[in-house]
Amino acid sequence: MSTILKGLRVTEVSAFIAAPLGGMTLAQLGAEVIRIDPIGGNIDYRRMPLSPTGASLYWTSLNKGKRSVTLALNTPEGQEIARALITGPGEEAGILLTNLPASGWMSHAALSRHRADLIMLRLTGNHDGSGAVDYTVNCASGFPTATGRDEAPVNHVLPAWDVAAGLYLTTGLLAAERQRRRDGQGREVTLALSDVMLATVGNLGYIADVQVNRNVRPPLGNDLYGALGRDFATSDGRRLMIVAISNRQWRAIGKATGLTERLAMIGPMMGVDLDTEVGRFDARGAIFALLEMWVGRHTLAEAGALLSAAGVLWGPYQDFGQLVAEDPRCSTKNPIFGMIDQSGVGRVLAAGSPLGFTDGDRLPPVPAPAMGQDTDAVLAEVLGMSSAQIGRLHDSGTIAGPG
Amino acid sequence: MSTILKGLRVTEVSAFIAAPLGGMTLAQLGAEVIRIDPIGGNIDYRRMPLSPTGASLYWTSLNKGKRSVTLALNTPEGQEIARALITGPGEEAGILLTNLPASGWMSHAALSRHRADLIMLRLTGNHDGSGAVDYTVNCASGFPTATGRDEAPVNHVLPAWDVAAGLYLTTGLLAAERQRRRDGQGREVTLALSDVMLATVGNLGYIADVQVNRNVRPPLGNDLYGALGRDFATSDGRRLMIVAISNRQWRAIGKATGLTERLAMIGPMMGVDLDTEVGRFDARGAIFALLEMWVGRHTLAEAGALLSAAGVLWGPYQDFGQLVAEDPRCSTKNPIFGMIDQSGVGRVLAAGSPLGFTDGDRLPPVPAPAMGQDTDAVLAEVLGMSSAQIGRLHDSGTIAGPG
Repeated sequence: MSTILKGLRVTEVSAFIAAPLGGMTLAQLGAEVIRIDPIGGNIDYRRMPLSPTGASLYWTSLNKGKRSVTLALNTPEGQEIARALITGPGEEAGILLTNLPASGWMSHAALSRHRADLIMLRLTGNHDGSGAVDYTVNCASGFPTATGRDEAPVNHVLPAWDVAAGLYLTTGLLAAERQRRRDGQGREVTLALSDVMLATVGNLGYIADVQVNRNVRPPLGNDLYGALGRDFATSDGRRLMIVAISNRQWRAIGKATGLTERLAMIGPMMGVDLDTEVGRFDARGAIFALLEMWVGRHTLAEAGALLSAAGVLWGPYQDFGQLVAEDPRCSTKNPIFGMIDQSGVGRVLAAGSPLGFTDGDRLPPVPAPAMGQDTDAVLAEVLGMSSAQIGRLHDSGTIAGPG
Repeated sequence: MSTILKGLRVTEVSAFIAAPLGGMTLAQLGAEVIRIDPIGGNIDYRRMPLSPTGASLYWTSLNKGKRSVTLALNTPEGQEIARALITGPGEEAGILLTNLPASGWMSHAALSRHRADLIMLRLTGNHDGSGAVDYTVNCASGFPTATGRDEAPVNHVLPAWDVAAGLYLTTGLLAAERQRRRDGQGREVTLALSDVMLATVGNLGYIADVQVNRNVRPPLGNDLYGALGRDFATSDGRRLMIVAISNRQWRAIGKATGLTERLAMIGPMMGVDLDTEVGRFDARGAIFALLEMWVGRHTLAEAGALLSAAGVLWGPYQDFGQLVAEDPRCSTKNPIFGMIDQSGVGRVLAAGSPLGFTDGDRLPPVPAPAMGQDTDAVLAEVLGMSSAQIGRLHDSGTIAGPG
């Protein structure tokens, strides 16, 4: 089994997407991830979409494979137990992952008094600590105004900044834990969601393009920038994307469509070298005119078969329903997927880690916990509490189990 | 200095976004990342956008802080040197990151004959090894048909799957290196770009929503799904995004706009509980009507000041030019940024790692290398070659330096 992070224990006090995704990513690689929530669940516990019985498909999908502990976090007693779990013993423990305001008992200063080598990962909105979420970061990024075909900005639906932030957190956590085993030092690792956006805008060349060329990338609809690619309608009312980023892929398009000679006429006609990405990008209008005609004469199945046979880089457009119904990659034929029985939801397809390791099979996907299902077990295992102690904490309302 | 990964040596044989971003992420945390390219550069070396002198702003932005070695990779001699660098000595070395076809001399089997504990990270398009890129993965994801307001699919401009894949690679690399120090074993770690997409679609609840509710999320324009949020036009022709995902944020909107009492009328009018996310989502049309009126009477600066003062979660829309010109977060006032002198480009703002560590300042951003600038130094340092040996390899065209 690919339990590559087996032994690592991470405590998570979180909500929404980025930090929970970070914790789940580690759990799917074999780490023990203990999510601590207030009794009844945190603010994200009932987010849409919901199952017919009211379970959040959002929450269950983002918290698979974790252990769930629920505490009265608004009381000193509940905070004390959370603190003990976070700073609990073990060379591979003492790691907190959070996106909640880390003040008072949950500040790095307060917690590290109880465990000097604590590693604390802290996600904030902005680097000055002010609030921001994916939606308020995305609007400022420049991407919405460069998306679509019109002047009106188009928001992304994929919370891409949250997803990237979750994976920066796992990277930072493993880097800090690696270094702790060398120098014995704990660390506070901070990440701002808007910094993830800003670094990425820069990493992709947009900042330099503005500064060096005074160029603000305009919206290009579904055209690729700087290469050849666009969507085309098929004869059966579907759409597909065709792309060429190498000369081999460009020649494959001619081969698949039988248009090699006609496509070659575009070079001299437009005065460009079609064996360069810049040339194909500049002449894309003419190229698209030919491809539009060709794709429009074929069904998705026909066009796809011809394109695949010739080695063209292409893909079908699918809505979420078609993805689940038609795409064999989105099924148990793909080793990342398995069927799970999710409490409150039923039997559903779920993914494990997309990372595969040669030393064995992947960890199969496992369901999210019921809220508080591991409270008693974790308090016994990590803090060595007796049943009597645990019983008294239940009686005082300091801890809760499921239901 | 936050050189948390100092000592780690990673060899990268890559092109485009995901694998180079993975390598750069490690370099920005202090790792030594040696990018090996064919003489003259790989297929991504001249990608748009270009500087006035023809340097790729795309390439320089995605390869900051690496060392560059150029070899005649199409010859046995060049391959032999690449193999020696990849499998070179050092407890923290012997790690390859690639998205190129890993066959022949670059297969895990061939390389691990020279270093049994080699860690090899390999990014492919699909899990069966077939090709796919961000654009052909995205069209299949379901997101383009759920983006925008119309039936026509809208491609994302941010290559979000590439960005996420790059960060899964860094996570997988650090996980495998952690385990190698425990069990001494090398590993091949595989990741398919389409699996990153599929796992994410599942992690966000879309697959379960289809399977459990037979619900295919329709496009909602710029409205948030399942919460309150949308874009609004200001009196000076700008736009801003207002969001509330908590009751505190919802009350802040009333406070900022002075509309608390009018907003409260919407609950009974629409028959919903406005103190729930579902209630606010269901009544969003009426809420937006009031907010649209209010925002439209203010400039961006006026509205922003009032919203910020009351603690509303909001953000301005900015194009890439406005982001660079107007947003103080995108400047050297933000500790992730610095000015660099990039060869062929000039003096530009660049980001280092968005991750910050308490044990010192962040590594300042550093430029991308000139192609081949480190060939001689790396061959001397890693392989212990003499100047005479290096000279002979230059003479035979097996290696090359810059220019």
